[in-house]
Amino acid sequence: MALTIGVDIGGTKIAAGVVDEEGNVLETHTVPTPPTADGIIEAICAAVDGARAGTGGEIAAVGIGAAGYVDDKRATVIFAPNIDWRHEPLKDKVEQRVGLPVVVENDANAAAWGEYRFGAGQGHHDVIVITLGTGLGGGIIMGNKLRRGRFGVAAEFGHVRVVPDGLLCGCGSQGCWEQYASGRALVRYARQRAAATPERAAVLLGLGDGTVDGIQGQHISAAARRGDTVAVDSFRELARWVGAGLADLASLFDPSAFIIGGGVSDEGELVLDPVRKSFRRWLVGSQWRPHAQVLAAELGNRAGLVGAADLARQG
Amino acid sequence: MALTIGVDIGGTKIAAGVVDEEGNVLETHTVPTPPTADGIIEAICAAVDGARAGTGGEIAAVGIGAAGYVDDKRATVIFAPNIDWRHEPLKDKVEQRVGLPVVVENDANAAAWGEYRFGAGQGHHDVIVITLGTGLGGGIIMGNKLRRGRFGVAAEFGHVRVVPDGLLCGCGSQGCWEQYASGRALVRYARQRAAATPERAAVLLGLGDGTVDGIQGQHISAAARRGDTVAVDSFRELARWVGAGLADLASLFDPSAFIIGGGVSDEGELVLDPVRKSFRRWLVGSQWRPHAQVLAAELGNRAGLVGAADLARQG
Amino acid sequence: MALTIGVDIGGTKIAAGVVDEEGNVLETHTVPTPPTADGIIEAICAAVDGARAGTGGEIAAVGIGAAGYVDDKRATVIFAPNIDWRHEPLKDKVEQRVGLPVVVENDANAAAWGEYRFGAGQGHHDVIVITLGTGLGGGIIMGNKLRRGRFGVAAEFGHVRVVPDGLLCGCGSQGCWEQYASGRALVRYARQRAAATPERAAVLLGLGDGTVDGIQGQHISAAARRGDTVAVDSFRELARWVGAGLADLASLFDPSAFIIGGGVSDEGELVLDPVRKSFRRWLVGSQWRPHAQVLAAELGNRAGLVGAADLARQG
Amino acid sequence: MALTIGVDIGGTKIAAGVVDEEGNVLETHTVPTPPTADGIIEAICAAVDGARAGTGGEIAAVGIGAAGYVDDKRATVIFAPNIDWRHEPLKDKVEQRVGLPVVVENDANAAAWGEYRFGAGQGHHDVIVITLGTGLGGGIIMGNKLRRGRFGVAAEFGHVRVVPDGLLCGCGSQGCWEQYASGRALVRYARQRAAATPERAAVLLGLGDGTVDGIQGQHISAAARRGDTVAVDSFRELARWVGAGLADLASLFDPSAFIIGGGVSDEGELVLDPVRKSFRRWLVGSQWRPHAQVLAAELGNRAGLVGAADLARQG
Repeated sequence: MALTIGVDIGGTKIAAGVVDEEGNVLETHTVPTPPTADGIIEAICAAVDGARAGTGGEIAAVGIGAAGYVDDKRATVIFAPNIDWRHEPLKDKVEQRVGLPVVVENDANAAAWGEYRFGAGQGHHDVIVITLGTGLGGGIIMGNKLRRGRFGVAAEFGHVRVVPDGLLCGCGSQGCWEQYASGRALVRYARQRAAATPERAAVLLGLGDGTVDGIQGQHISAAARRGDTVAVDSFRELARWVGAGLADLASLFDPSAFIIGGGVSDEGELVLDPVRKSFRRWLVGSQWRPHAQVLAAELGNRAGLVGAADLARQG
Repeated sequence: MALTIGVDIGGTKIAAGVVDEEGNVLETHTVPTPPTADGIIEAICAAVDGARAGTGGEIAAVGIGAAGYVDDKRATVIFAPNIDWRHEPLKDKVEQRVGLPVVVENDANAAAWGEYRFGAGQGHHDVIVITLGTGLGGGIIMGNKLRRGRFGVAAEFGHVRVVPDGLLCGCGSQGCWEQYASGRALVRYARQRAAATPERAAVLLGLGDGTVDGIQGQHISAAARRGDTVAVDSFRELARWVGAGLADLASLFDPSAFIIGGGVSDEGELVLDPVRKSFRRWLVGSQWRPHAQVLAAELGNRAGLVGAADLARQG
Repeated sequence: MALTIGVDIGGTKIAAGVVDEEGNVLETHTVPTPPTADGIIEAICAAVDGARAGTGGEIAAVGIGAAGYVDDKRATVIFAPNIDWRHEPLKDKVEQRVGLPVVVENDANAAAWGEYRFGAGQGHHDVIVITLGTGLGGGIIMGNKLRRGRFGVAAEFGHVRVVPDGLLCGCGSQGCWEQYASGRALVRYARQRAAATPERAAVLLGLGDGTVDGIQGQHISAAARRGDTVAVDSFRELARWVGAGLADLASLFDPSAFIIGGGVSDEGELVLDPVRKSFRRWLVGSQWRPHAQVLAAELGNRAGLVGAADLARQG
Repeated sequence: MALTIGVDIGGTKIAAGVVDEEGNVLETHTVPTPPTADGIIEAICAAVDGARAGTGGEIAAVGIGAAGYVDDKRATVIFAPNIDWRHEPLKDKVEQRVGLPVVVENDANAAAWGEYRFGAGQGHHDVIVITLGTGLGGGIIMGNKLRRGRFGVAAEFGHVRVVPDGLLCGCGSQGCWEQYASGRALVRYARQRAAATPERAAVLLGLGDGTVDGIQGQHISAAARRGDTVAVDSFRELARWVGAGLADLASLFDPSAFIIGGGVSDEGELVLDPVRKSFRRWLVGSQWRPHAQVLAAELGNRAGLVGAADLARQG
């Protein structure tokens, strides 16, 4: 039975996990994330070696999920937003050191693949996975295949323009979806509302340090569960943007399901219910067409690691 | 050598054409478009019979391009915008009468396929075709296959929301791309400008009946070629919206080429040059990623017929 | 004691009322609104004569509130949206026939003046009155004077652009505030939501004829009072646009109060509470500046008549 | 003949000027701008003393133009954006030290008054002055009086929302006009275009240090005068936003003239011509109503000083 290793590169730690054919993580090894670009490659190899050592079975391949643009050969990181990798031949370097075949994939693509294979997407052939974390990413499965585009950089959902002349984005463009539909956006909504009407935000402010700028994502979730109107309204505003975007993606891709993952989706129905409402409001032709389902992701933050491992298995 | 017939349903006439394996139209037969839904089916069969009669070779299959939603079996028109077809089993009805296998396809998908196979898309594997006619339609080719989505209604480009709370669309939604990037939008731009500054629109107004409401698409094209600033500015405004939308599609699909067809694209570089400029302005990550080409369609208004015939051949 | 007559021109009837110095309506005479432009002038005179005959006191002057542009001399209706008056010398014509001094004023200006003098605006020197009816109108009082602008056509609040490239307006422009903040907009919000999620709109649909297109303003109000979520959400959407617009007007005019009148405001706190919340959210510098009050109008639909009469008194 | 002193507080120097009844600046004294809030008050007094010493005539009063919110008594700076003044009793402090009556006014209001009295606004009774500098400010003259609002903070044109969910503004709000219509916006337009299509920006890039981030306002002006298309297009984009905003202000205030001042307006017709075109395009009712003129300011950067001095004279 073929085991493969999936690697997830986080801001604080790098995790390598041994994954079997059914998506089970048999063994995980983590190392701290070093500050330098070269150091991170060393750390990836160390994590792989650690995970490999901890398992008896043979490892067939390694899959690495990396933020940023990965080329169509799944070998080179063209551009990474948080690491100084520019046209970095990650596949070659890691293969040389660990002596196993390596596949590099965009991390959101890897997570999407994980959900499609072993999570909420099982049984579907056409699925869009949206990851609502600090930003917004995702992946496209059409006809049971991960769609990467001609140059490997498809599925950059977060940078579709949803507001002409809208908010500046780190990417240099304006009005990108992730400026309105992401954990960062949720915090902005809550802070703007709390600043404007602090008397309505007593619960929310009480959960943090009492200041508007101290409001963090987890406070909004906790306050919303306690019915705080500023928090609930902030989730509704987020959901309006998420749902409207899904309606657009339905017009384009017509999947049978959308899967919503990432930290924001941990709130479950608190966010999914208004997302579905907004999705239906803006879905074009909703009277005539079958509606895609809007599902919660099931694998949590191991989706990327599991997906990368499985992509490596498939070669 | 297998010949197939492609059918194009227009507002005034229905055309059936015999098409060979290289996309050549050997024979065409046209009939007027009847006013009733049932009459149109009769007319389609009559056109097919006429085309068939005019050729010596054997016909293997018939492909019909129809506006609206076509189901995933390519058999039923779920909803047509201009004909009273609702869950209309077009494939069965036409097969019964003409005695040939029939494939029904969304007309913009058929045209996209035509361009991919025999027009500007040859040699590409991942292509987005945009048809700028009165409205805006198109088709998706990814991995050398036409992508129809799970339920057959993908590639509804025209109804992606590009302006929140924007213009009402016939689809019931607001801010749809085709309200900003289409022949109809171009006319609106020109009329608004001519009404506001008639002294700048002398050439444009002189080409029509002299009134703002008399301005038609062909006047704008003619005036633009003569340097009329209102007409040129109207094309630029159109191009801004087209190019910004292409940038979004590049983020999502990452094709190697966009092909721009439809009546508006007949103006060639008058529209393509500013479209490319706008596309580049809004393309996210343009510094790092390879850029898709923006090409003019090559088949003109026979793309749909040729594409439908070829899809029928492929079964 | 000087009495004056105010005239209100409605779509179905024309009302003339005798008004005293304290804004009391002592006597009202109404006549049906004729279909022709000239007929309406006759009817105005008849209504004035009727009201005059019904009172013992002497009438000093007549004030007429008319929809549309009224010139800076308050004599000529430059353009009326619903009556075929173009540069119509209304003042001269009515003066000739009724033998009294006549002042013509834009109807929304007249209503604003009425509220300022005898309604919710008493005691304020700087007031903006917003009338949320089918459309959106209003008037400006700054320094205790009605501000009409240089040419008489100031305070066209409804046609400020709040959405670039937004909804088409009857005025020919796009994105006008009244397309988002008016009774007509409220109906659109409710219909869009009811169409998308009919199962959530049971109460609302049950109040009308059961169809989405049968939803009228009064159904939305009734449903909202019964907690129907589609109706409540529709009011919230309306309120978001009203409040954001008030925040802009505060940046420009810095009044001490906004007064919200018109049919939509009959719902009282159902609309005013979310309007205040939205106003505060978007008010620039809200931490530092004193906040304008947001008040409900008090005179209902007699504001225009009373205001016109009072403006006539002041000459 | 009464002389007064006007004070202009700049980022690098504070200027006090002796101004006569006809707006002539007879004498100017400047001092460097100190870094502290208290130091600036000292410096204002020193500049006043210096200007006073340099003239033979008697000084009747002092007018100070200050950025930020000035209260309705024209005495206290409620909030200043660049100086640490919060509820600062500037009038009292300066009166105590210089022994002259002092009037404090918002600096954009002062500049507007200067243009109205001695510049492009002479002969008009209802004027809106827009100052396009780094940001966007302005002032309102209606009925020959400066309109300050109930609390003194009217005419904050730059913070009217022109794009819902638009660019973040330093004020905490989003979509403020000054984010789209200001010198800073012009630079953004040019940089975005130069980054996207550097081959079209050769002239522009050559005027600076060759990098996109090195593009400054003066380079755009110089390049536009030489026909560089990126620079010309950037001015056009700026003008679209300025003109559309003026159209809204016409709907609200109906002035007889708009006066465009500030550094951006130094380019004259390069910016004014497209502004007028955009203004006319978006002016509601343009067929029926008289059009406000769009004029270039005449006093340049001494408008604020002259205006403050004149407001002080009028008491």
